[in-house]
Amino acid sequence: MPIDARALLHELTREARELDIGSTVGRVPASQLNSLVFYRDYVSRNKPLIITGALDHWPAVQAWTVHHILERMGEAKISVARTPHGRADSVINLDGTKYFALPEEEHMPVQEFFAGLQGSRSEVTYAQAQNNSLPEEFGPLLQDVTDLGWATEAFGRTPEATNLWIGSDDSVTSFHKDHYENMYAVVKGRKLFTLLPPSDAYRLYSQTCRVAQYRRNAAGALELQPEEPPREVPWATVDPCPASEEQMQASQLAHPEYWDPDLPSPLQAEVGPGEVLYLPSLWFHHVRQEAGADECVIAVNFWYEMAFDCKAAYARLADQLALELHSQPLPDG
Amino acid sequence: MPIDARALLHELTREARELDIGSTVGRVPASQLNSLVFYRDYVSRNKPLIITGALDHWPAVQAWTVHHILERMGEAKISVARTPHGRADSVINLDGTKYFALPEEEHMPVQEFFAGLQGSRSEVTYAQAQNNSLPEEFGPLLQDVTDLGWATEAFGRTPEATNLWIGSDDSVTSFHKDHYENMYAVVKGRKLFTLLPPSDAYRLYSQTCRVAQYRRNAAGALELQPEEPPREVPWATVDPCPASEEQMQASQLAHPEYWDPDLPSPLQAEVGPGEVLYLPSLWFHHVRQEAGADECVIAVNFWYEMAFDCKAAYARLADQLALELHSQPLPDG
Repeated sequence: MPIDARALLHELTREARELDIGSTVGRVPASQLNSLVFYRDYVSRNKPLIITGALDHWPAVQAWTVHHILERMGEAKISVARTPHGRADSVINLDGTKYFALPEEEHMPVQEFFAGLQGSRSEVTYAQAQNNSLPEEFGPLLQDVTDLGWATEAFGRTPEATNLWIGSDDSVTSFHKDHYENMYAVVKGRKLFTLLPPSDAYRLYSQTCRVAQYRRNAAGALELQPEEPPREVPWATVDPCPASEEQMQASQLAHPEYWDPDLPSPLQAEVGPGEVLYLPSLWFHHVRQEAGADECVIAVNFWYEMAFDCKAAYARLADQLALELHSQPLPDG
Repeated sequence: MPIDARALLHELTREARELDIGSTVGRVPASQLNSLVFYRDYVSRNKPLIITGALDHWPAVQAWTVHHILERMGEAKISVARTPHGRADSVINLDGTKYFALPEEEHMPVQEFFAGLQGSRSEVTYAQAQNNSLPEEFGPLLQDVTDLGWATEAFGRTPEATNLWIGSDDSVTSFHKDHYENMYAVVKGRKLFTLLPPSDAYRLYSQTCRVAQYRRNAAGALELQPEEPPREVPWATVDPCPASEEQMQASQLAHPEYWDPDLPSPLQAEVGPGEVLYLPSLWFHHVRQEAGADECVIAVNFWYEMAFDCKAAYARLADQLALELHSQPLPDG
């Protein structure tokens, strides 16, 4: 009898939820955590957590208005991602083909960036460089932020990278995973994470897509242009927030195991100012944001080296079962 | 195309070893560990470790001679397991049928136990009760032992059970796993552990066996008697130390993936007096012992509650793939 990869993966999904993960992301005040408790009860278990009151000692939480940032940064230039719609690094359908769409990348003065972010331009900009951007590009703001000492103690090393994110409601990050332990600190606005554990890779219907990048065409508009020579990457094709009823129906047809009401729903984590999301290594995350009463959404994330241990080996097994599954036709009905 | 469970499991075995476990069990002095480092680098990774110099503060290491134990214990009775050959709780072939053989269980004065252990009796006795036996049966010896404080701090709770083990070279414990984190402290003699991670369950060829128990027959000899009403348990059938060349050849034929030179060998951990083995939850372990110059082999193990997290869910997936594998014929050759 051939092995039923689908049944095994469904059971893995349910078992991981029932044993440990549950259906909601917990909230714990920073005052109730220490490095050992955090590592034992969350990192070791590869289980997300929202830590409240975690940034009480950060000047940034009060200080980071647009005015303050402009004053501090002066004429400094920063990296900015630009797209027509806010969906950088995601799968875009174009003329019936699925492309993995990279944003146009620009270097511009901070003042120009904020003018675009708050203006009425039809294009969407997002400061989202993930190359240790806080010290590399926003050095003058470093003094408003301190390391999360208990996290650094827990992981036993300083972060590999510290990135600053500044964006508006229009920017969305598509489902993906990182090979890092991630401490995601929200300074202004709210971040809305949709989360699936590494064992649930099969629910995201990864497809190999040709890489393309937005570039400005002769008419001055952003246009998606396939990379030459051609290059392909696998990427999750599920959009958890379809823009219309029609798109929702199409997704339910194409991605039945993402929406399956008999499987546990993806977890939702809404992270507000002064809160930190512990986003465990290899977890899939889709991120939206809401500025609300704030001028924009600002966050700082710390990437710490992950342990490549049995959990990573097991996640790879789940990936392989998922690959096998999706080389098979979808079930009837 | 049906999934090749064998190929997936072989890759899992190799990946877990290459990423993290390696081919030998590390030794670290207790002075270089603390609760966070121990939890992060070993427990979270589900990775075994021998901790040296871990019992320097235990009076037991010097004090526990047979004379001392007899003096302390007085007339107290203890639980003793008795078999004809030293293999309690293991799979025994009898008239072509495989039984899971429980030992005869006796309650006897400590003096009688030691007389049997050191005498020339043809039967093998082993004080191996795992019901929190140190406080329950050996209370007068408790004062010679202290909790492993850093381990209790790491796990965040006191042990669920603390067991005392007293035996001779003749006693062997067959491959099995426990649903506990195990700190195994050797006081006298040496323990020789053969170890396989939870992902390698398929290499132990578990079979469902009828339960039987050794009982004394009319002629006064121990005889294996099937339980009534019949009861079955699954148990590992691999003996990593076959008694003869003939048995080795039979095992290589019946258990090719245990002996496969193209797969990583089981890990060996030789634990001497004053050392502690951290035996991670769900790891399969086979245990032999050598009294050497000591009168007998004495050990204390601490069972701490394990975390039922994604690692446990993944281990269950590996178990299910193993079941699937063994419902299929072995490969040719």
